[in-house]
Amino acid sequence: MARKISDSTVRRLSRYLRRLRTLDRQELKVVSSRELAESTGTTAAQVRKDLSHFGSFGKRGQGYGVTDLRVQLEEILGLTRRWRVAVLGVGRIGSALLGYGFFTQRGFDVVAAFDTDRSMIGRDVAGVRVQPLKELETTFEEQEISIAIIATPVEAAQKAADRAVRAGARAILNFAPIKLRMSPGVAVREMDVTLELEGLCYLVTEAGAATDVKE
Amino acid sequence: MARKISDSTVRRLSRYLRRLRTLDRQELKVVSSRELAESTGTTAAQVRKDLSHFGSFGKRGQGYGVTDLRVQLEEILGLTRRWRVAVLGVGRIGSALLGYGFFTQRGFDVVAAFDTDRSMIGRDVAGVRVQPLKELETTFEEQEISIAIIATPVEAAQKAADRAVRAGARAILNFAPIKLRMSPGVAVREMDVTLELEGLCYLVTEAGAATDVKE
Repeated sequence: MARKISDSTVRRLSRYLRRLRTLDRQELKVVSSRELAESTGTTAAQVRKDLSHFGSFGKRGQGYGVTDLRVQLEEILGLTRRWRVAVLGVGRIGSALLGYGFFTQRGFDVVAAFDTDRSMIGRDVAGVRVQPLKELETTFEEQEISIAIIATPVEAAQKAADRAVRAGARAILNFAPIKLRMSPGVAVREMDVTLELEGLCYLVTEAGAATDVKE
Repeated sequence: MARKISDSTVRRLSRYLRRLRTLDRQELKVVSSRELAESTGTTAAQVRKDLSHFGSFGKRGQGYGVTDLRVQLEEILGLTRRWRVAVLGVGRIGSALLGYGFFTQRGFDVVAAFDTDRSMIGRDVAGVRVQPLKELETTFEEQEISIAIIATPVEAAQKAADRAVRAGARAILNFAPIKLRMSPGVAVREMDVTLELEGLCYLVTEAGAATDVKE
């Protein structure tokens, strides 16, 4: 798959896949572009356009085969294999992530967790033992970890990410509210709750209701 | 501010603002579009284009006044007031959010939390008392809550969001891995960790390294 797809397309593909997995579990055989669009918040034309990038899956007027499309999207997104993940920083967010059961279901195995806080080291958080940072390199290699989730305080985030990449990580999911500077070969996504909240405030304000909430 | 700005522009504005706040705390007076671009992962041309939508802030060759631009972005994004937030669902993610100190710093006051689990109700989580769902309507009204964060299990998410909106919420930040169907006047943003992880997998796979992580 040499074609470069935009971030927003990848996000939509991921949403289609989420929906297809549900439909597949419900043993539905066929889905129309309109159904897929409605359940993912886009238009039928956009669905058809997105999917046409990868060859013509659907038959005109007949919709898409649910299982077929699911499998093809999993292949496109690189989800036919399992991915090994480490969490760096086991504070509130790190702990919540370690206990997030959905990861395993979706093909991600969180196999390691690291912290610098002595009171955390050695603890079992949702089945994962918290290790000291000095064990990071060995563990990344032994466990073949390719994704690092950064859940450290802001000031430790860049160093933690750099260290994970040197140890073999090729993708970073960053929860610290800071823009990480990574070398071009490393994939980075940001999860910044306040950024999303600010986006919501803009939408609400722009809707002309910024003055006052109640009366 | 009648002009409609796209979601991706709003996200960039929010990133510029994050950076400007840091610079302002460091008492820097002026910032160039190039500096803003580098620290937020975009191009100087994009920065200039984004900011020109709102009038010409910068002076050619002199950059932007840090405090001025910060204040103007806060006004554009609707962040000159404080926003009152409730968390629905106090599991791992909900608890982590309640303890997230950054919210207060950024103008968001998490003033209420709700759960249906009897063992949670009445507990104090990071200074917020967990209330039963039946108190939602009264509390939303009394506390003038306008943003609801949905951190319930998937199957409870839609109902929780609907109820929050009926009680007065105008914005929803959704952590449940499901697309919520809300009426057009309600602003919704999604925080789906697995969606971001899948995006990373695509990037890593597409970079041609899907075969194997280590040798």
